[in-house]
Amino acid sequence: MSQRAQITPLSGFPEWLPEQRIVEQMLLDRIRRLAELYGFVPLETRAVEPLEHLVHQGETSKEIYTVGRLQDEGATADLGLHFDLTVPLARYVQEFRGRLRFPFKRYQIQKVWRGERPQDGRYREFYQADLDVVGDGELSLHFDAEMPAIMHELLAALPVPTATVLVSNRKVLDGFGRGLGRDDTTGIIRALDKLDKIGADGVRELLCGEVGTTDGEADRWLALAEIRSPDLDFVDAVTALGVSDDLLTRGLDELTTVVAASASLPRGAVVADLHIARGLDYYTGTVFESTIAGHSDLGSICSGGRYDDLASGGGHPLPGVGISVGVSRLLGRFLGGGQLRASRATPTCVLVALVDEGGRGRSAAIARRLRTRGIAAEVFHEPLRFGKQIRHADRRGIPFVWFPARGDDDTDSVRDLRSGTQVPADADAWMPPDADLHPAIESTAAAAP
Amino acid sequence: MSQRAQITPLSGFPEWLPEQRIVEQMLLDRIRRLAELYGFVPLETRAVEPLEHLVHQGETSKEIYTVGRLQDEGATADLGLHFDLTVPLARYVQEFRGRLRFPFKRYQIQKVWRGERPQDGRYREFYQADLDVVGDGELSLHFDAEMPAIMHELLAALPVPTATVLVSNRKVLDGFGRGLGRDDTTGIIRALDKLDKIGADGVRELLCGEVGTTDGEADRWLALAEIRSPDLDFVDAVTALGVSDDLLTRGLDELTTVVAASASLPRGAVVADLHIARGLDYYTGTVFESTIAGHSDLGSICSGGRYDDLASGGGHPLPGVGISVGVSRLLGRFLGGGQLRASRATPTCVLVALVDEGGRGRSAAIARRLRTRGIAAEVFHEPLRFGKQIRHADRRGIPFVWFPARGDDDTDSVRDLRSGTQVPADADAWMPPDADLHPAIESTAAAAP
Repeated sequence: MSQRAQITPLSGFPEWLPEQRIVEQMLLDRIRRLAELYGFVPLETRAVEPLEHLVHQGETSKEIYTVGRLQDEGATADLGLHFDLTVPLARYVQEFRGRLRFPFKRYQIQKVWRGERPQDGRYREFYQADLDVVGDGELSLHFDAEMPAIMHELLAALPVPTATVLVSNRKVLDGFGRGLGRDDTTGIIRALDKLDKIGADGVRELLCGEVGTTDGEADRWLALAEIRSPDLDFVDAVTALGVSDDLLTRGLDELTTVVAASASLPRGAVVADLHIARGLDYYTGTVFESTIAGHSDLGSICSGGRYDDLASGGGHPLPGVGISVGVSRLLGRFLGGGQLRASRATPTCVLVALVDEGGRGRSAAIARRLRTRGIAAEVFHEPLRFGKQIRHADRRGIPFVWFPARGDDDTDSVRDLRSGTQVPADADAWMPPDADLHPAIESTAAAAP
Repeated sequence: MSQRAQITPLSGFPEWLPEQRIVEQMLLDRIRRLAELYGFVPLETRAVEPLEHLVHQGETSKEIYTVGRLQDEGATADLGLHFDLTVPLARYVQEFRGRLRFPFKRYQIQKVWRGERPQDGRYREFYQADLDVVGDGELSLHFDAEMPAIMHELLAALPVPTATVLVSNRKVLDGFGRGLGRDDTTGIIRALDKLDKIGADGVRELLCGEVGTTDGEADRWLALAEIRSPDLDFVDAVTALGVSDDLLTRGLDELTTVVAASASLPRGAVVADLHIARGLDYYTGTVFESTIAGHSDLGSICSGGRYDDLASGGGHPLPGVGISVGVSRLLGRFLGGGQLRASRATPTCVLVALVDEGGRGRSAAIARRLRTRGIAAEVFHEPLRFGKQIRHADRRGIPFVWFPARGDDDTDSVRDLRSGTQVPADADAWMPPDADLHPAIESTAAAAP
């Protein structure tokens, strides 16, 4: 049906083997499960948006994929594939505003597309998982305060090494700048954002050079950016820098509320880290990042923050706070690297052997009875000798083979292929151990499950 | 962040409200669950394929959406969005052949895109759910025989009216034609395919006119097409038409095997129906369709069949048998028509009330304890009077509101908003009724759940 010729992978469009897809699905399931436990409603938007809504975003314009009909070739495309889940959310909330309940808490797990140059950790098609709360007119700081716990639980639910949630507030940076007589902190933020990459000396060079601060001002910015505390000590540390401003005070108050709300989590799980800024993004208050122990080169795989208005330009505002998980980037590292795998390459728990042609009905009935009780079962398709049927199961990692009774005097039996133990069994009663019911994630990447 | 202007729906790109998406997710979950119970492995392929692989399909070329990067505007697109899940399967199996286990049983639930003129039941972006078994070189009829039971269970698991699975075999039609001295049955099949729409008289007109049969031959084709039996009687009925041919015999044998394998299902659930042909498709043996009682105008929402080779052109063949469920078409009818709805518009089972600002930690701890035990819970964000917090829960359909103890002498209590009953409760022990734990599908479309 399709041509055999020229089958080559497309760079930047990763595809998994089924046993890897099983792991991906489990991760997506865990994110979904956690989002729902917190009361986020599911949302899925169409893959395309009007191009004019996408290009408005500036920074990423070049990377946009346009979509047009083959029969209209030559005409200018007016649709594009979404490159994140925020632009679609903004459009959706405006379009359906009258039919949504606010605060609107939604999660959304979908593929997004960016025509980037493919490289390590950068894909052209990848999954994002977003959680946002959007208010109609206003939005309580309560929702900012809840986010670090959600991020912590979410990252702990994924089979990756221990993650730390980093929190700051853009008002602290902006207010600190104002206190220093500086209205525009864009250049400052862009420089501080590079602290992890180029170190304090590199940032100082940028500040004194490109940005044009004095040595004294650069010192204070670097001192601010180095403040890091798992509790509320950051307030005193900032105050000790001797800068005062109303906006700074407001930022510190907000950050205090957010960090204090995480007090029930293990110490160090959430850390106030004042160099976090999400520089190029549209955040206006709380900002979040996360780091995975031993994988700082991955960058933040769960980030987000507070924004004043989801939809710029008139009307009353739609403020929000949200996070985005880079599922594909995470999987690319741990799944692609072989540190995560499924315990078996198929959902099947039991292969029901086929004794002979006449036994198809009997084997099918056994499989049906197992499935009725939630046990994934398939019937082997050919009455080959049992050794071959067992080998087929073994190669796929199917843990059990079921042998139908060979006559009225016989009983069914089931063999555990790992131990070789074979016991009489009744398809209406037998249950596998819980751990064998579904494939499990096996991880050498983390202490976590 | 995105412009407020010009927000209008895109025709053919349906989007649901969260309470509708909850229903869609449940349907997709049920399909996934059933596929996995039968041992199909999950697969997800990229959304794009090289355009040359897509246009090869002829019939649907015009409807293909091309994909190109904005920065390459003017260049000829070399990628397109997939319009089904079969072309990607064919490409994937060839690309990963050496790393897959055969017979390769996979399910795949993804959006597909077709630039059709949008109309009732036709979308430009929609979900398909496909199950296929692909062999390497050969594939046992066993897998054809298993399919009607899977289709029956799948349709019974969906909250739609009773469905009937219709089965036939292209070899019966082709062999019948050969027995009548006709090598090419394309025109015949195209005419018989219209039996439901234009009736026997209309088909006779087509046969005697366009196709050019004699009245006598048309009679026999119509007699064949009208054979319908829930058991193996169809064999005698075909034989009685007095046409004989080897291919016809082989087709009847295959169809006998497939229908006989469904004997354990309720009578009438699977029916041999000899007018089924899947005319324009690439099937070469068994063919499947399904009808939903009272919704014959919807057409077949679950169809498929056996094909000789997934990838044409050289090498040894990849025969397969599969089905495809038109999830969006089905939802468009029953969800769009309001006959299916979620019992509530949010996953949240319990809203934990907020007594006062000082009580945030206590309310958060209660919600955390409930979530630990799998109960979706959220804390109300503002210490409004309880009446307002209750109204908020009620409007969203949240069934329970939790009131934290107001002091050491007090205990927590939980109120069922439907009955108004309020009882003392412990967040480490209280459980809602099973039916309230998650939103349920409520259907006025079917007797089935």
